Amino acid sequence: MSNRTILADHDIPRQWYNLAADLPHAPLPPLGPDGNPVNPQALAAVFPMNLIEQEMSQERWISIPDEVLEIMLRYRPTPLHRARALESALGTPARIYFKNESVSPTGSHKVNTAVAQAFYNKAAGVKRVTSETGAGQWGSSIAFACSQFGLECKVYMVKVSFQQKPFRKVMMNTFGAECVPSPSSETNAGRAILAADPGSGGSLGIAISEAVEAAVSDPSGRTRYTLGSVLNHVLLHQTIIGLEAKKQLAALGERKVNQVIACVGGGSNFAGIAFPFIQDKINGSQIDIIAVEPASCPTLTRGPYVYDHGDVAGLTPLLAMHSLGHTFMPDGIHAGGLRYHGMAPLVSQTVMEGLTRAVSLQQLECFESALLFARTEGIIPAPESSHAIAQAIREARQAKEEGKERVILFNLSGHGLMDLNGYSDFMEGKLVDHELSREALAQGLTCLEGLPVPASR
Amino acid sequence: MSNRTILADHDIPRQWYNLAADLPHAPLPPLGPDGNPVNPQALAAVFPMNLIEQEMSQERWISIPDEVLEIMLRYRPTPLHRARALESALGTPARIYFKNESVSPTGSHKVNTAVAQAFYNKAAGVKRVTSETGAGQWGSSIAFACSQFGLECKVYMVKVSFQQKPFRKVMMNTFGAECVPSPSSETNAGRAILAADPGSGGSLGIAISEAVEAAVSDPSGRTRYTLGSVLNHVLLHQTIIGLEAKKQLAALGERKVNQVIACVGGGSNFAGIAFPFIQDKINGSQIDIIAVEPASCPTLTRGPYVYDHGDVAGLTPLLAMHSLGHTFMPDGIHAGGLRYHGMAPLVSQTVMEGLTRAVSLQQLECFESALLFARTEGIIPAPESSHAIAQAIREARQAKEEGKERVILFNLSGHGLMDLNGYSDFMEGKLVDHELSREALAQGLTCLEGLPVPASR
Repeated sequence: MSNRTILADHDIPRQWYNLAADLPHAPLPPLGPDGNPVNPQALAAVFPMNLIEQEMSQERWISIPDEVLEIMLRYRPTPLHRARALESALGTPARIYFKNESVSPTGSHKVNTAVAQAFYNKAAGVKRVTSETGAGQWGSSIAFACSQFGLECKVYMVKVSFQQKPFRKVMMNTFGAECVPSPSSETNAGRAILAADPGSGGSLGIAISEAVEAAVSDPSGRTRYTLGSVLNHVLLHQTIIGLEAKKQLAALGERKVNQVIACVGGGSNFAGIAFPFIQDKINGSQIDIIAVEPASCPTLTRGPYVYDHGDVAGLTPLLAMHSLGHTFMPDGIHAGGLRYHGMAPLVSQTVMEGLTRAVSLQQLECFESALLFARTEGIIPAPESSHAIAQAIREARQAKEEGKERVILFNLSGHGLMDLNGYSDFMEGKLVDHELSREALAQGLTCLEGLPVPASR
Repeated sequence: MSNRTILADHDIPRQWYNLAADLPHAPLPPLGPDGNPVNPQALAAVFPMNLIEQEMSQERWISIPDEVLEIMLRYRPTPLHRARALESALGTPARIYFKNESVSPTGSHKVNTAVAQAFYNKAAGVKRVTSETGAGQWGSSIAFACSQFGLECKVYMVKVSFQQKPFRKVMMNTFGAECVPSPSSETNAGRAILAADPGSGGSLGIAISEAVEAAVSDPSGRTRYTLGSVLNHVLLHQTIIGLEAKKQLAALGERKVNQVIACVGGGSNFAGIAFPFIQDKINGSQIDIIAVEPASCPTLTRGPYVYDHGDVAGLTPLLAMHSLGHTFMPDGIHAGGLRYHGMAPLVSQTVMEGLTRAVSLQQLECFESALLFARTEGIIPAPESSHAIAQAIREARQAKEEGKERVILFNLSGHGLMDLNGYSDFMEGKLVDHELSREALAQGLTCLEGLPVPASR
């Protein structure tokens, strides 16, 4: 009768899976300003050494510390649901499963890495962490995690989001963290922007610059910076999602998953559910792994694989990744978590190696799918997650046309209770689809000129 | 290592517990306008007969239909958490457990009865249900439940709340329900109010009048009214909370619970967790059962036990309950779900029979407790639930003073992600405590003059 599969606490995975150990080609290293691979020591002012080691690790399995497991066990293992009501509404022969990451303390998968990062920072003697946040999902998660380990936390939130989404700041404050709008007058980076443009609404790139500066310039040397996606160690921490899903599907007797689907912005929720299945694919299983991005920010489907900066100001190391150019400014779609010019290097590499198939969708189809999902499965998804749902529905409809069974798994990365203004705009007919023009695309890519090019294989 | 206890799906309770079967004295019947007990047939235009039978049932155990279980199994059994981090912060020898009802599709316990009511209405051939909502927690829950059973749903939302909390309307719309501000121009009751006061902000009493009128005046005869608290059948549906908690505590080897704590507005989340333990108390166990209400709306602690109407306009039958008078207007505290002049008759009777102890708390202490809870246990509680938390903290501190172990169980009735404006006001120092004056209390009680008095025992 039940359509929800829960794992016993003692069945929670005790190791993260590191895809870097199994990729056909070794990942390309990040490059410093001199064009040479970055030395771990060069990052020591930004991240604690234990996380830098994880970032560069080639170990296949990395143990999850007990202290991290203990906090994750408050909401994990998360449920795996069979979406029978959705299947029924679609009349599909496909069996659709979704992993429900919306049950975490802040309503999304972001908590998984936030807890781990807070733990490693604490273990390294760090007193205070800084970070940036766009829509606020990551900022509230790192705030939660810091409250658990007694770390101070300061979040630079993109000013337009800070003004539009005041409740995310309240969440951070409730967990004891400080949240200021960026650009702020507290950093050189922020002051420079404000001097040039006092009315600046900020950007993720500016906020990253402020958070990094605030970390490295602390005279006590006990502040470090944290990031919610893109980097290898962040993706690593999310693999618990896919590892749990595998156990749950096995418990249901599902031996073969045909398709694994997740949305991609920076790449972390996708990596979380997909990487453990990509390991199977590398080992010979036929699985269709699908990364779904918004048509207005089509990093994987229209961006080249290049060396580019992670931030607008060009302060971060150069990463080998798909990118629309670090100066690219996407349209203001409601799936704010997917508006990022780059893509996690490991995710980019799975696309280059033919392990992941990337597709892009328009937001109207995604909201339409989200409504169908809410009215059948009863959970209001985050606008980001609705991209995965929309693709799952496309695949289920195709299965119906073919008259063939298939098993589809997607990641419900979070709920949409903090994003109801997007639903309101959609239901009132205020949203439209935007096709990214060739000109806008070309303009974003101009900033890549002169940067190193990844070696061909 | 884990502080969360989950029950297997097959351990979900399959019967609700009806306290009416075990109370030392039979509950007093509702009275009609003529002062005589209401005939079930007289309610048939308002509720379907299957729910009217439940409302009047004296059966101890009532089976939960499979269709209701199937939907509840998407989020139930809900977790029972040991609040070890909170215990540690308090330095208490008490073991504090809480039942986490915040994991439901709309974030609170309200869904438990919404699903059952939608099922019974559907089974009775009803096509459309109406209801009212204040802050929107109930409205979004009945909207969710109706989407699951293919029922149309229309919710009259108190206009001031409709304007202050627009996202609750969006939630209802997302689930396919209609939500209009009350007073509306769609009913005689609404039009009469608007004619007298075009700028009326509405009240729960007015919204009830509109929802009832809309149900009984549907010429097709296939619309019925639903209510989210107070009535016996609503409380019955919530007892799954306490029944699950008992199983979970038993699984942990906790043989003896010393205190069971919940907040009370209409009484349904309190009844849900407490009634199964009150059965034990009636059978001889020593358990301290505590109902916590806001000092600004102290129905149980300062209201007399009387026959009063459930709505401001006096359209409902007279219920034997504690009441501050149906014209009483409480202060605008953030715990909107606790601002009700009356109390569920069954809950009132447990107080009269000495089975429940009622206490009242001020909102500053509740928000202070909510912050401590968020920063230790990592869940931001609803302002209503914070009353239960505050009392649990008081009890845990007393245990510390006494240097004695005790087992405390409270109900976390919902999360506060839709109520962050209250947290914001609190952290900015904008909230104050209000002591209800003797004059304001006396004024509310004047409306009770001339109403029948419950027979003494």
